[in-house]
Amino acid sequence: MPPFSRVTVIGLGLIGSSIARGVRAHMTGVGLTGYDADPQVRETAKAIGLCDDVADSAGAAVTDADLVILCVPVGAIGDAAREFAEDLPADAVVSDVGSCKESVVTALREALPGVAIVPAHPVAGTERSGPEAGFAQLFHNRWCILTPPADADPLAVERVAEFWKRLGADIEMMEPAHHDRVLAVTSHLPHLIAYTIVGTASDLEEVTSSEVIKYSAGGFRDFTRIAASDPTMWRDVFLSNREAVLDMLQRFSEDLSALQRAIRWGKGEELFDLFTRTRAVRRSVIEQGQDDAREDFGRAHD
Amino acid sequence: MPPFSRVTVIGLGLIGSSIARGVRAHMTGVGLTGYDADPQVRETAKAIGLCDDVADSAGAAVTDADLVILCVPVGAIGDAAREFAEDLPADAVVSDVGSCKESVVTALREALPGVAIVPAHPVAGTERSGPEAGFAQLFHNRWCILTPPADADPLAVERVAEFWKRLGADIEMMEPAHHDRVLAVTSHLPHLIAYTIVGTASDLEEVTSSEVIKYSAGGFRDFTRIAASDPTMWRDVFLSNREAVLDMLQRFSEDLSALQRAIRWGKGEELFDLFTRTRAVRRSVIEQGQDDAREDFGRAHD
Ligand SMILES: NC(=O)c1ccc[n+]([C@@H]2O[C@H](COP(=O)([O-])OP(=O)(O)OC[C@H]3O[C@@H](n4cnc5c(N)ncnc54)[C@H](OP(=O)(O)O)[C@@H]3O)[C@@H](O)[C@H]2O)c1
Ligand SMILES: NC(=O)c1ccc[n+]([C@@H]2O[C@H](COP(=O)([O-])OP(=O)(O)OC[C@H]3O[C@@H](n4cnc5c(N)ncnc54)[C@H](OP(=O)(O)O)[C@@H]3O)[C@@H](O)[C@H]2O)c1
Repeated sequence: MPPFSRVTVIGLGLIGSSIARGVRAHMTGVGLTGYDADPQVRETAKAIGLCDDVADSAGAAVTDADLVILCVPVGAIGDAAREFAEDLPADAVVSDVGSCKESVVTALREALPGVAIVPAHPVAGTERSGPEAGFAQLFHNRWCILTPPADADPLAVERVAEFWKRLGADIEMMEPAHHDRVLAVTSHLPHLIAYTIVGTASDLEEVTSSEVIKYSAGGFRDFTRIAASDPTMWRDVFLSNREAVLDMLQRFSEDLSALQRAIRWGKGEELFDLFTRTRAVRRSVIEQGQDDAREDFGRAHD
Repeated sequence: MPPFSRVTVIGLGLIGSSIARGVRAHMTGVGLTGYDADPQVRETAKAIGLCDDVADSAGAAVTDADLVILCVPVGAIGDAAREFAEDLPADAVVSDVGSCKESVVTALREALPGVAIVPAHPVAGTERSGPEAGFAQLFHNRWCILTPPADADPLAVERVAEFWKRLGADIEMMEPAHHDRVLAVTSHLPHLIAYTIVGTASDLEEVTSSEVIKYSAGGFRDFTRIAASDPTMWRDVFLSNREAVLDMLQRFSEDLSALQRAIRWGKGEELFDLFTRTRAVRRSVIEQGQDDAREDFGRAHD
């Protein structure tokens, strides 16, 4: 039996719509209600039959839910929760999928005092957003990190974990603060750097934007994919996980300066040693099933 | 009729072996000789039947060639050319595939005075290296940039251009110095940054390397692909294109500092504006056929 029987998804973008599709694919019989602040998104969700029901308000969406998952940008989670706080059944569990957890835990606790809260973060995504970008397999073989507060009801945690397992994910538990530092390095810093380099490249004068795009297959195009991620989502992530991001950025900058010096002074051995070490990291990523083993991400050639 | 009838490839790694396979696939009847400084690579090339003939010395490889293409790391191009200089037929054209061109043009002119030299750079590659990594389609619909000296024989340039068209590439002409600045931003800087961040991530203490790998699907794994590229090749690129790389790096660092300040002071609008601009760059990359339009590079999900 599925761990919940009436699931409500608030925010029907990439992640919310992937959850909805995953519930349909893997938990037949479970009732599915959706809500999104954006009327257009609600229209689209209805048109593509994403949920059994798309409600016109957050309150109406949760009235008979036993699980409510907030899939909105992290900066909007507190407000989104407040919107349905009065209508939430007493025994409902509330979860979310936010990319940072300390700020989210605080916001949820403030907005929903006394409610069973089990924050979660599925480490999976693409550069797309919106209700049509989702797909049921997004979470297959990916990690979903739960960061329950120390006083969380173990049964609620167990049920949320089981929910994500059914969506295909593997579960890990973490302290919110540690989660935020791990993700600062594995996700937030990479995005920040990709955004920066794509910005730098398009602001040059002697090299035109059209040249940058034309010859992007030399490596730059990989960065453009990440830098195409949702602006609202990522603005919120950087503002919410500020301390950890700035700290990781500081370390990155120091390492970059060291490399800059190595190039300036022609220290080939130093470069070679680093490039050999990083190659080994790639091997581990593939051995642990975290990326496509095929070259070039398995990109189609012809 | 193919533009050359006896082609010699010096250096049978990713690019050299892709050219050999491309000649086999697209220019039947053309004689193909290979040479590599590494005896093991020569053995492998023989075993997989990469060329009609794999010679035991660079000199023996070129004696009856009408096109010789150097596919060795850019720092080795001068030496590799000197090795066969005495055995080169008077009417042979010499080309290369080096990722930077000013230093290569200088090295080739010094090593091969009086020879028809048409430097080239196919903007295509993967993170693999060695003779088994190549494939005939690597250059299909990719740009190949020729940087012929001002006094180059137009017929030799025409023939090399035709050769690359037959391998599936589109041709562009550039000054070597401009090439090096364009590629510094579209290829060399992205690689440098990917190497740096992968290094930074694996040197942290509080976040373990195994956590970095485990949660790499949040963005980091994309960088590990680029940072798995050949250490020798990339050491040579950074040392050979030092000025342009350091200049681009300087601009990148300034932009990164600006972003750092925006995060520190909570300037969400600044972040949002940049992230919106970079999203548009991705759209152009896809519209111009420079990347897979499918989300996530078309990575397999399940
Ligand atoms: N994308 C990823 O790779 C990824 C991975 C893991 C976790 N996450 C997390 O997942 C969450 C959602 O991201 P996403 O990629 O699915 O974004 P998305 O595709 O942009 O979808 C978010 C949706 O939430 C709506 N929304 C905003 N505020 C709301 C509110 N107060 N009440 C109800 N709906 C609201 C948005 O409507 P508008 O049209 O008005 O914006 C939008 O339709 C974020 O917290 C993000 O950090 C994302
Ligand atoms: N990979 C890319 O993405 C890419 C794209 C465009 C252009 N390029 C350029 O293509 C060239 C080759 O790169 P690659 O990726 O094909 O590298 P690779 O797979 O490492 O192959 C290079 C081969 O050249 C051999 N070699 C080194 N010095 C030599 C010499 N003096 N004489 C003969 N053979 C020698 C190497 O032998 P060892 O085993 O002794 O090293 C190796 O087998 C480089 O100039 C690079 O800048 C690369």
